[in-house]
Amino acid sequence: MLIVMHHSASEEQIDQVISAVQSMGLQAEPIPGSLRTAIGVLGNQGYVDDSTIRNLPGVRETIHVSKPYKLVSRDFHPASTEVTVRSAVFGDNRPPVIIAGPCSIESEEQMLEAARTVKAAGGQMLRGGAFKPRTGPHSFQGLGVEGLKYLRLAGDATELPVVTEVMRIEQLDAVCKHADMLQIGARNMQNFDLLKEVGRLDHPVLLKRGMSATLEEFLAAAEYIVAEGNGNVVLCERGIRTFERATRNTLDLSVVPLIRDMSHLPIIVDPSHATGKRSLVPVMAKAALVAGAHGLMIEVHPDPATALCDGAQSLDGDGFSALMGQIGGLQDYLRTH
Amino acid sequence: MLIVMHHSASEEQIDQVISAVQSMGLQAEPIPGSLRTAIGVLGNQGYVDDSTIRNLPGVRETIHVSKPYKLVSRDFHPASTEVTVRSAVFGDNRPPVIIAGPCSIESEEQMLEAARTVKAAGGQMLRGGAFKPRTGPHSFQGLGVEGLKYLRLAGDATELPVVTEVMRIEQLDAVCKHADMLQIGARNMQNFDLLKEVGRLDHPVLLKRGMSATLEEFLAAAEYIVAEGNGNVVLCERGIRTFERATRNTLDLSVVPLIRDMSHLPIIVDPSHATGKRSLVPVMAKAALVAGAHGLMIEVHPDPATALCDGAQSLDGDGFSALMGQIGGLQDYLRTH
Amino acid sequence: MLIVMHHSASEEQIDQVISAVQSMGLQAEPIPGSLRTAIGVLGNQGYVDDSTIRNLPGVRETIHVSKPYKLVSRDFHPASTEVTVRSAVFGDNRPPVIIAGPCSIESEEQMLEAARTVKAAGGQMLRGGAFKPRTGPHSFQGLGVEGLKYLRLAGDATELPVVTEVMRIEQLDAVCKHADMLQIGARNMQNFDLLKEVGRLDHPVLLKRGMSATLEEFLAAAEYIVAEGNGNVVLCERGIRTFERATRNTLDLSVVPLIRDMSHLPIIVDPSHATGKRSLVPVMAKAALVAGAHGLMIEVHPDPATALCDGAQSLDGDGFSALMGQIGGLQDYLRTH
Amino acid sequence: MLIVMHHSASEEQIDQVISAVQSMGLQAEPIPGSLRTAIGVLGNQGYVDDSTIRNLPGVRETIHVSKPYKLVSRDFHPASTEVTVRSAVFGDNRPPVIIAGPCSIESEEQMLEAARTVKAAGGQMLRGGAFKPRTGPHSFQGLGVEGLKYLRLAGDATELPVVTEVMRIEQLDAVCKHADMLQIGARNMQNFDLLKEVGRLDHPVLLKRGMSATLEEFLAAAEYIVAEGNGNVVLCERGIRTFERATRNTLDLSVVPLIRDMSHLPIIVDPSHATGKRSLVPVMAKAALVAGAHGLMIEVHPDPATALCDGAQSLDGDGFSALMGQIGGLQDYLRTH
Repeated sequence: MLIVMHHSASEEQIDQVISAVQSMGLQAEPIPGSLRTAIGVLGNQGYVDDSTIRNLPGVRETIHVSKPYKLVSRDFHPASTEVTVRSAVFGDNRPPVIIAGPCSIESEEQMLEAARTVKAAGGQMLRGGAFKPRTGPHSFQGLGVEGLKYLRLAGDATELPVVTEVMRIEQLDAVCKHADMLQIGARNMQNFDLLKEVGRLDHPVLLKRGMSATLEEFLAAAEYIVAEGNGNVVLCERGIRTFERATRNTLDLSVVPLIRDMSHLPIIVDPSHATGKRSLVPVMAKAALVAGAHGLMIEVHPDPATALCDGAQSLDGDGFSALMGQIGGLQDYLRTH
Repeated sequence: MLIVMHHSASEEQIDQVISAVQSMGLQAEPIPGSLRTAIGVLGNQGYVDDSTIRNLPGVRETIHVSKPYKLVSRDFHPASTEVTVRSAVFGDNRPPVIIAGPCSIESEEQMLEAARTVKAAGGQMLRGGAFKPRTGPHSFQGLGVEGLKYLRLAGDATELPVVTEVMRIEQLDAVCKHADMLQIGARNMQNFDLLKEVGRLDHPVLLKRGMSATLEEFLAAAEYIVAEGNGNVVLCERGIRTFERATRNTLDLSVVPLIRDMSHLPIIVDPSHATGKRSLVPVMAKAALVAGAHGLMIEVHPDPATALCDGAQSLDGDGFSALMGQIGGLQDYLRTH
Repeated sequence: MLIVMHHSASEEQIDQVISAVQSMGLQAEPIPGSLRTAIGVLGNQGYVDDSTIRNLPGVRETIHVSKPYKLVSRDFHPASTEVTVRSAVFGDNRPPVIIAGPCSIESEEQMLEAARTVKAAGGQMLRGGAFKPRTGPHSFQGLGVEGLKYLRLAGDATELPVVTEVMRIEQLDAVCKHADMLQIGARNMQNFDLLKEVGRLDHPVLLKRGMSATLEEFLAAAEYIVAEGNGNVVLCERGIRTFERATRNTLDLSVVPLIRDMSHLPIIVDPSHATGKRSLVPVMAKAALVAGAHGLMIEVHPDPATALCDGAQSLDGDGFSALMGQIGGLQDYLRTH
Repeated sequence: MLIVMHHSASEEQIDQVISAVQSMGLQAEPIPGSLRTAIGVLGNQGYVDDSTIRNLPGVRETIHVSKPYKLVSRDFHPASTEVTVRSAVFGDNRPPVIIAGPCSIESEEQMLEAARTVKAAGGQMLRGGAFKPRTGPHSFQGLGVEGLKYLRLAGDATELPVVTEVMRIEQLDAVCKHADMLQIGARNMQNFDLLKEVGRLDHPVLLKRGMSATLEEFLAAAEYIVAEGNGNVVLCERGIRTFERATRNTLDLSVVPLIRDMSHLPIIVDPSHATGKRSLVPVMAKAALVAGAHGLMIEVHPDPATALCDGAQSLDGDGFSALMGQIGGLQDYLRTH
């Protein structure tokens, strides 16, 4: 941490800050400049809580050098992590893992049909939501545990590993029983109790970026899970909230190469939630792969017009098949460039 | 809802949209314009889910006229709601309720001292966090149930009603036992399960705006609580996330008069979390009252320099007393203007 | 336009709104709903200014159906536009146009070397800034007209068409004399006088999106130019300002397919300014092409370490050559998928 | 500036960075930490351009300690500046200066009536726009120089100093001839040529914050003007662009006390453009004064329903008179607290 003093800070104020740093068990190294003094803080093993220093007299600002994450950072763990979910492997030098399926599980038939569609087109994992967070209280809220069974059944019938969102700690038992991978949704990215609980399990975790989360906060959320012992975390960019509302969210694709540089964890992209428009999904899916995504999460519904949730952003079977064909060609390109 | 067709939409496409609307049990009223046709949707009793219509061929966009909230809207409930928390009353024509106390409960002594400071300066309610959501996993996470007891004890000793944040459904029993008002934090504003559960209780609720929540989403979150039967909801603006990082968040004070116009629920302001800087708190607290806030939530700590959480934005006893004196004079002005 | 009345609006208020619409020479069509009345506005030939209606008593909100652009909209002009800048052609079914060169023109030698680098690697157009907008007043401000001559000379020597930014109307003569295409920078996207002046010229125009401009405002800015008679406009996405500061701006790639759908004008992408980081440029450049961009604008500097401007985001000759090689393979893929 | 090296940076990389700093004529002070090395840069007299250092091998990031402004900073100029525009004085310990008038000048009669309204209610300055920046090309664009004459005439008739926006350098002569204060609009906040030109004049300047400008960029823009010799700059907060669209912009009132702390220049607030809604203007105007604004800019139109521009956010004469009455009482409070 660097503590920047005001131009007019007195010697006494500087000494007071140095004492405060030392009383935290850290060293303080004054760096006198031509216009002002800065004080380097040394000896910390990670992020320093600056709340007792930031407002001391004469302090203009504190600047963090250490980040609030370390275990997930490539700086300290250079080798890329591979996350295995039965037959699907997320990682460098692996084909991208395409996860597909409906926004919400509606019935056994719907899930089976969706699973067959995903399988036939070449998808590697099946998704489906049993517990749905909805902005308004009067929308369809999901089938719950009953839905989890349909998901499992459809996964088994097609030999596709399945992933589903868990929204509450109490749902963990049921979800772990039926799903191969646990999804933490964007709204729960900073539900720290849930993150810690999931960190104590063995199941691989798909962690979605919160819609107003910075990259730093996203990685700090992953750190919560890894710090508890579960290193099988796959990150997922799904769009952030900005002033632009022509798309549902703003897909921040640049974080894909940036996260690959800053962290050893795999990163995938969800173009369906990011754009909210079916017509944009295929093209942004391909752009995400070129940007370096280790996989995709795509909403696919046998009959989007009757979907109980997010039909407008779901591909139908033909649309998904066409996309998978295009992705195949793209992988040939990516392998050789 | 209004469905806007493309300039070049065919008669057949228009008919298909009309059929889709009718199959939802609603009426469709075509409005032919000089450049394009729009289709009004009539007969709905609230927000219409447009996901099956938005992507039909020939549809350019759908525009919502009904909002995803109705019970909390002044349009349907013109009379302002008063929310009573023992001796404290939030409402029009009431003095603003000043809630104060430390970010986190650290010990029995600290809470007692904080409570006496709040009481002596004229505060009406006591706050303190027992369960702390922290961005990084290695920061102080709160005292839990033990902390709730200290809060209750400090409240009883000073005859101040107490409010504290509940982060998980399983904490509800303990929190309800010890607190007079339940706070839903910004990160949980769209934790719909928690909202519904809280909606089934009698305790008054303080609902904080999510850091990237629109006004519409904020009111829809309150609707979740009220729809379950608990109408004792107080809203709280605490800053939103924007590109500007000179303050911790951007305090969106304009929503105070706007919410007073759109909803019958009381609205208070938390200038401590919004600004993140002690020096800005008093002035923004006063600005909030002038903007029409029914109350304030202020972080006060007996000794901010040693606070385990958010010391940089906490007032000490003298600072809070000075602010309360200034607020007194302001109320005289507000009563007469 | 649709005018939505309050639930409790009186008949008299509705009549007053209808009169106000009619006094604008337009028709008003009341649409009585179960909860409230809406009033459709018909007969307008484009965007309606609602400022005299929005605040009439009983009006809850006005909703625009027509957009503030029409000439640039695909809705009214379905055929895609091709923009030709000497040997470079921006358009559907054309290879992407790669524009490259230094942020700022520093000397005749630097421009010649940059031009040769661009040409050798296969770039189709040369860029270079003579007038530099800089955030702080003490940074290098550009060589001015002298720089334009170096740009022209370097373009002629390598047979590359050249594009450069014009910041003021008075610079137009000089810029038109030396450049083949005029660039309007992000900060000037709503400099309407400049847009109109440029609209009266024959030179093709590269219009960059403002850093806080919505898609609608971006297209409305293009409309200013086209409305004056100059239809040779190429749009350029270069990142928007959001809460995320890990990259210089947030590259909003989803607007590429969206603009291709909404407008007939070509759209290119500038990954250098968007990301601000050299290491992210190649991968985002390729992602932009997959997203459907008709071209790219890439900062290339013979020796980025000594660049007077934006060296950190500039590729050197080897980096640019490598990127061009990868783009070649990508075009093969795009042609066949 | 502080240069933070990667955890794994080699000695050689650190030496290379030190050499690069020294070749800029600055000193480099390595600060070895337990996890990584940082390098302090000393000897600079202001903001350091880091573009040649940011991407050197082994560098993780550069952190600026000096800001891109110094002349406008209170750190170096502790005494508050007063700006005098004939009878109106912006400054500490002065009554707030209320600037009022229509968005655009429409006719001699309209301006005279507006001026009389402003004067009668107790306003101290008159505003009116002769050159109007409008999002769409087909809206009313202002009366130009003819309008300036009406403004001058109305100001003289009522003895009110007048302020108007200048959008282009070529308009400066005419505007200086007729106006007492020059306004730089939000869209031109980073029109650096215009800023510099205005900096060479004697006229006081009202500089509005750009809609996506950070505080740092806002102050750097003011620095452009002051650096040229014109220190008579008044800053104006007018709302920023965020995801929240319930108001036209998000009024960022917290910057008022923050700017008062960071700069010696006066700061006023424009609640009309910030909120875009007439009903919110009075309450936010008062909140701005309590937040410490040295003045207000309010849109007032004799007959808002017929205004050619921004009628929906304009107060009529009665509304403005009522507001001025309330402001009078507020000043009594502010003087004594």
